[in-house]
Amino acid sequence: MEKIIAELIEQLEKLPGIGPKAAQRIAYYFLNTSRQSVASLLKSVANAKDSIKFCQKCGNYAVQNLCSICSNSQRNKNLLCVVEQPKDIIGIEASGKFLGLYLVLGGQINPIDNIGPDDLRINLLLKRVQEENISEIILATNLNLEGEVTANYIKDKITQNQANSKIKITRIASGLPAGSDIEFADEITLGRAIDFRTKI
Amino acid sequence: MEKIIAELIEQLEKLPGIGPKAAQRIAYYFLNTSRQSVASLLKSVANAKDSIKFCQKCGNYAVQNLCSICSNSQRNKNLLCVVEQPKDIIGIEASGKFLGLYLVLGGQINPIDNIGPDDLRINLLLKRVQEENISEIILATNLNLEGEVTANYIKDKITQNQANSKIKITRIASGLPAGSDIEFADEITLGRAIDFRTKI
Repeated sequence: MEKIIAELIEQLEKLPGIGPKAAQRIAYYFLNTSRQSVASLLKSVANAKDSIKFCQKCGNYAVQNLCSICSNSQRNKNLLCVVEQPKDIIGIEASGKFLGLYLVLGGQINPIDNIGPDDLRINLLLKRVQEENISEIILATNLNLEGEVTANYIKDKITQNQANSKIKITRIASGLPAGSDIEFADEITLGRAIDFRTKI
Repeated sequence: MEKIIAELIEQLEKLPGIGPKAAQRIAYYFLNTSRQSVASLLKSVANAKDSIKFCQKCGNYAVQNLCSICSNSQRNKNLLCVVEQPKDIIGIEASGKFLGLYLVLGGQINPIDNIGPDDLRINLLLKRVQEENISEIILATNLNLEGEVTANYIKDKITQNQANSKIKITRIASGLPAGSDIEFADEITLGRAIDFRTKI
């Protein structure tokens, strides 16, 4: 294979979820497709990167100072959902089950990667808790160890302040994914699914 | 979601094998990653597109007039493998089972898409058959209807010429893929696997 194609494939393999085969397929697509459609894709990437910044209120991606959710007057300002990354918002929005506002931490507490509470938007969260009229905070960090640690840290920080005693703090449910087989579920998920069983 | 991100995701979905979820993941990767690594990827795409052309001898992608295979003096010049696309060469090279030269047709005969023999490099193939000392031509077009039609067309074109009577024309084998279950094989594949069974 020509070295320049191998280099392109190598670069494409850095994309998330793209293995060697997929990278190869995309590289050959680029070589085979019109200059115009490649230019159009590259322009979309550059445009998005140039015009996107972080929402000053929640940390989501935004074109203006506020993201499209924070600047939407229809959203319920008493509900706050805390997520790790902007991409986590997409799935929650798609569910249609949450109509409040978000706070994007920007990651999870992770001592191995040297990420502590000060590297996340926890101070922004505490400031909003103080200034806004929030009735419930849903902690929607990931369901892994670091996500749980982060959720617990935030819960402790908020409940430490007596002024917050009326705020309900919740955690998204853990259990078996929709459509899944019990046979193939891991024991931790199954344990949680039993612990948090609901009456029907 | 910000419109500019939605547009980027839409563009990324045009890539082969990239569905909405994967496009979303890649878009957020671009937003989240350093300007430098995005620039480096875009440069690789532009570089490859700018410097790659078709090999004058075989139709494979090339930086010079000849591709790295045609210009390799170690290759067996008596064996010619006919493939549809440059990407088909990668898998055959990876198998390590073929050390001859290639001819890339540039597609397959497909009346529905209005692609006839003249749209492929069949004349280049016939010219090479005439000028070079080829002992065997392996037809490695795809195993679908159009690939079979293309292979048969080429076989007829070559054998029409009495001067080519000593050239062995072969077709890559059809059968069950390595590691596959008989239970899940389709009946056409199974039929071929039985027709072309080999003595062990």
